[in-house]
Amino acid sequence: MRKLYYYPLCAFSRQALLSLEEKRLDVEVENTRFWDRGSGVLDMNSFGRLPILIDLNGTMVSGVLAVMEYLEEAYDQSKLLSTDFATRAEARRIFQWFNEDFSADITSPLVFERDIKRHLSLPSSSPSSASMRRIRDVMPVYLRQLEWFAERRNWLAGNDLSLADIAAAAHISTVDYLGGVPWSAFPIAKEWYSRIKSRPSFKRLLADRVPSLPPVSYYALLDF
Amino acid sequence: MRKLYYYPLCAFSRQALLSLEEKRLDVEVENTRFWDRGSGVLDMNSFGRLPILIDLNGTMVSGVLAVMEYLEEAYDQSKLLSTDFATRAEARRIFQWFNEDFSADITSPLVFERDIKRHLSLPSSSPSSASMRRIRDVMPVYLRQLEWFAERRNWLAGNDLSLADIAAAAHISTVDYLGGVPWSAFPIAKEWYSRIKSRPSFKRLLADRVPSLPPVSYYALLDF
Repeated sequence: MRKLYYYPLCAFSRQALLSLEEKRLDVEVENTRFWDRGSGVLDMNSFGRLPILIDLNGTMVSGVLAVMEYLEEAYDQSKLLSTDFATRAEARRIFQWFNEDFSADITSPLVFERDIKRHLSLPSSSPSSASMRRIRDVMPVYLRQLEWFAERRNWLAGNDLSLADIAAAAHISTVDYLGGVPWSAFPIAKEWYSRIKSRPSFKRLLADRVPSLPPVSYYALLDF
Repeated sequence: MRKLYYYPLCAFSRQALLSLEEKRLDVEVENTRFWDRGSGVLDMNSFGRLPILIDLNGTMVSGVLAVMEYLEEAYDQSKLLSTDFATRAEARRIFQWFNEDFSADITSPLVFERDIKRHLSLPSSSPSSASMRRIRDVMPVYLRQLEWFAERRNWLAGNDLSLADIAAAAHISTVDYLGGVPWSAFPIAKEWYSRIKSRPSFKRLLADRVPSLPPVSYYALLDF
């Protein structure tokens, strides 16, 4: 069986699962506490990053970039990159923006403050209010930019669903789990997210839970 | 003429130039102060990132990931990704590590402290000693890991030069320009860098200078 080392609030892991589900590839998901030395992640990926995919033939692929490009190259169904160079480039530009900028400003600090801190031996496990304030302040900047794309195109990088939407939806859904998306002020972003959230590929992800950290009430609702 | 919007101490720009040179593609380089609103970068890439490539047919490609994958896909010569899935994945895993982790810990803060700060209206333009100390402390951790690869393989991701080496060499050469690589303690990393630095593709990059910020004396020497 194909295997994915995954953590529910890791937005990189979510992208791998979404791509596998879009392509209807069976996969066994192993919940992996990537920050924990005992998890074995470092033995598989020396950089300590998820996702890690072990495909049917034993090929091991680590890190969100390698996994997403691998799935595109190895499987022909439900392509997430256009055949057109300019559209491929646009999808990768937005993919990079979410996986670097959005991740550094929003997802990584938010998941650290709200989830991972609880598992570390720190003097205090409560979220830093300065960090939480910064996340709240910068989130609208990203949502405005997301709306710029969503208003002009069918999907973020063009006519078709692409790696850009998968990356965006993975990060946004992680933040949404923790109640960090101010939907009422961003109706266009909400319409885009509602469309991707309704896809069959999203079901498994929306059903997934982090132990002792329930999502906000509307997290899994298609009408939110 | 093909055009590359580029900044000499931007490690992402350097990767694009190295790939173009490896593939022997003529390109006109335009030095672009990407942090400056007047540079026009935001009009071409709304995320404000270099490199930006305008290819012969007018296709515009922005951001290091999109540019590097585009050059691989659009041009058949001097491939920087293997045809083997596992080796491609390994190259992209290391590429991501340099462009995300190394960049966030080393290149970005170092270039900000030593170069970009001088161009901003800040109370002080001298480098923060705390930031410089942190960079110095974490650099050996990366060099040790680079040596792990360089010791076991011909190039970082396997037998052949790949996107992993280009990303690594672009970041390392940026840090080296500013004197930030403690070469004497890392002979294996030095041997790897010496090999890539001697390639014809590196010449143009080693000749490039940032105005009023000369490199360390040994920066462009092949025997350093």
